Amino acid sequence: MISTPPLPDGALPDLDFAAARRRLRGIVRRTPAIEASFGGITVWLKLESLQRTGSFKVRGAANRILTLTGSERRRGVVAVSSGNHGRAVAEVASRLGIAATIFVPDWADPLKVRAIADAGAAVVRCKGGYDAAEARAAAVAAEGGRTLVHPFDDLAVIEGQGTVMAEIAGDVAGVEEVIVPLSGGGLAAGVALAARAHGVRVVAVSASRAPVMVRSIEAGRPLSLPDRATIASALSGGIGTPNRHTFAAVRDLVAEHVVVKERAVRDAVRTLFERCRIVAEGGGAVGVAALRSGHRPRGRAAVVVSGGNIDAAALAALVARSRR
Amino acid sequence: MISTPPLPDGALPDLDFAAARRRLRGIVRRTPAIEASFGGITVWLKLESLQRTGSFKVRGAANRILTLTGSERRRGVVAVSSGNHGRAVAEVASRLGIAATIFVPDWADPLKVRAIADAGAAVVRCKGGYDAAEARAAAVAAEGGRTLVHPFDDLAVIEGQGTVMAEIAGDVAGVEEVIVPLSGGGLAAGVALAARAHGVRVVAVSASRAPVMVRSIEAGRPLSLPDRATIASALSGGIGTPNRHTFAAVRDLVAEHVVVKERAVRDAVRTLFERCRIVAEGGGAVGVAALRSGHRPRGRAAVVVSGGNIDAAALAALVARSRR
Repeated sequence: MISTPPLPDGALPDLDFAAARRRLRGIVRRTPAIEASFGGITVWLKLESLQRTGSFKVRGAANRILTLTGSERRRGVVAVSSGNHGRAVAEVASRLGIAATIFVPDWADPLKVRAIADAGAAVVRCKGGYDAAEARAAAVAAEGGRTLVHPFDDLAVIEGQGTVMAEIAGDVAGVEEVIVPLSGGGLAAGVALAARAHGVRVVAVSASRAPVMVRSIEAGRPLSLPDRATIASALSGGIGTPNRHTFAAVRDLVAEHVVVKERAVRDAVRTLFERCRIVAEGGGAVGVAALRSGHRPRGRAAVVVSGGNIDAAALAALVARSRR
Repeated sequence: MISTPPLPDGALPDLDFAAARRRLRGIVRRTPAIEASFGGITVWLKLESLQRTGSFKVRGAANRILTLTGSERRRGVVAVSSGNHGRAVAEVASRLGIAATIFVPDWADPLKVRAIADAGAAVVRCKGGYDAAEARAAAVAAEGGRTLVHPFDDLAVIEGQGTVMAEIAGDVAGVEEVIVPLSGGGLAAGVALAARAHGVRVVAVSASRAPVMVRSIEAGRPLSLPDRATIASALSGGIGTPNRHTFAAVRDLVAEHVVVKERAVRDAVRTLFERCRIVAEGGGAVGVAALRSGHRPRGRAAVVVSGGNIDAAALAALVARSRR
């Protein structure tokens, strides 16, 4: 399905999530789901924060890279990322002996940039934010015949991210709703496409300072908004104009959108740490922030805690600050 | 089995771990086990740090309290604890509507003391350390006909702690070795007794500043040693002289003892956080410290990460300090 051409707007692909799960075996961890209660609502937390590389991003990155041809592998891969996707691409590439170069916007979290370099990838920091990094990456990829591994708007990536849904269905008997963070829409699209087979409702949660997908859906077309600093930095970045796949999938398949404020995100990170000893980064905690901001799931719900890449000092500062 | 009299030294009881598992259902979480590698050795981490109350102690406390008679429940329970056992007793008692008073030594971690109070128990801080707290608790229990829930040297408590073994056997196919922290020996005795049915070898890890059980075994009798400050504070405290059950069980059933230094414990806490995003307190991380200090498991091994009750600031300080 890698070679599928761009789909007409609104046509939703049938991806092969079972094949992706087989492909990812040995690279992606089957993460635990644990029960927890927030304000009297009991949910299952799907801990992608304990995933290899510290976020779900390794699912999509690995699914894309594992379907490259031999000559594509030899030429290497390139990615643009504020952190988690870059780290996932770097670690998968390193494991498979493929050269990787990751372009990061200048505001990227130093912890994540270090992890990318530690995985053996070349790191290029780009002034001018995400868009500038994207332009440079595209130029370098084209020049060297290298494959640009898109962080979300690619069917293999979406298919990889969607593998989390089958695990949830296996671990949470009778699950009726899955709550996922929303940024570029790779996770939301993958989960929503996979959820059709399970009859599960998908709720997507955006950070109020990274709302480009939800605003685009309201506007009826992919928008471009300026980057804003947010505690949920993993959710920053554009959705692409044009957007090939995730805009239509999220628009057509996500049942409900929730937007959470900075304060609620900090509160969720603190609560997960103090009550559950779960390390979540801001972007990973927005599902719990939605519950604590008043979202009421319809039936038995799972919340994807999508990433845990936050350093101890930042976590401590955030916990102390949100307790005030 | 609650009424079993003290056993002759060396006679090991047959506990009913399957019955305990049924009893604990709904109170104790089946914690996840995840694969991780340390210095090229791959093990399964059994995350009791994600257990309700933040440590495995809830297994034993609940198993003891659930077997009280109606009139015992009405009179209430008492416990002595530097934190995790007290919190477990407080939360189980609160859930069952039983009054609980927890006696804590003056050096106990404030985070843990707060959690005990938050669970609704009365907290009494005792100058003079663990022994003084124990003496006061025993007096109060005798006076009011209240049940003293022992942190380790009680067959129902040992049976409860041993339920972790069956979960490990279920999650880690072919497990050959289980590595557990050692303090009073409730967890080590429970796991070692349960491990006989699975043909699993048990390795017990002591902190070098809380070595009373391992030194007692070397001496051939339960010793009393002064409390020393340690980063693995959950492992501090005596083993009781006389000791009824855990000394004999640990002496006869633990295949190998490892003693780890403070520096190795700090390194293990940092490594679990940075590499795996697992929050472990010092006492919970000694199994990983053993691996990083040179212990080589014989065959497929599981490491019990026994608790995660550390606050964010302490974790950050410890991570920063051990990186130097």
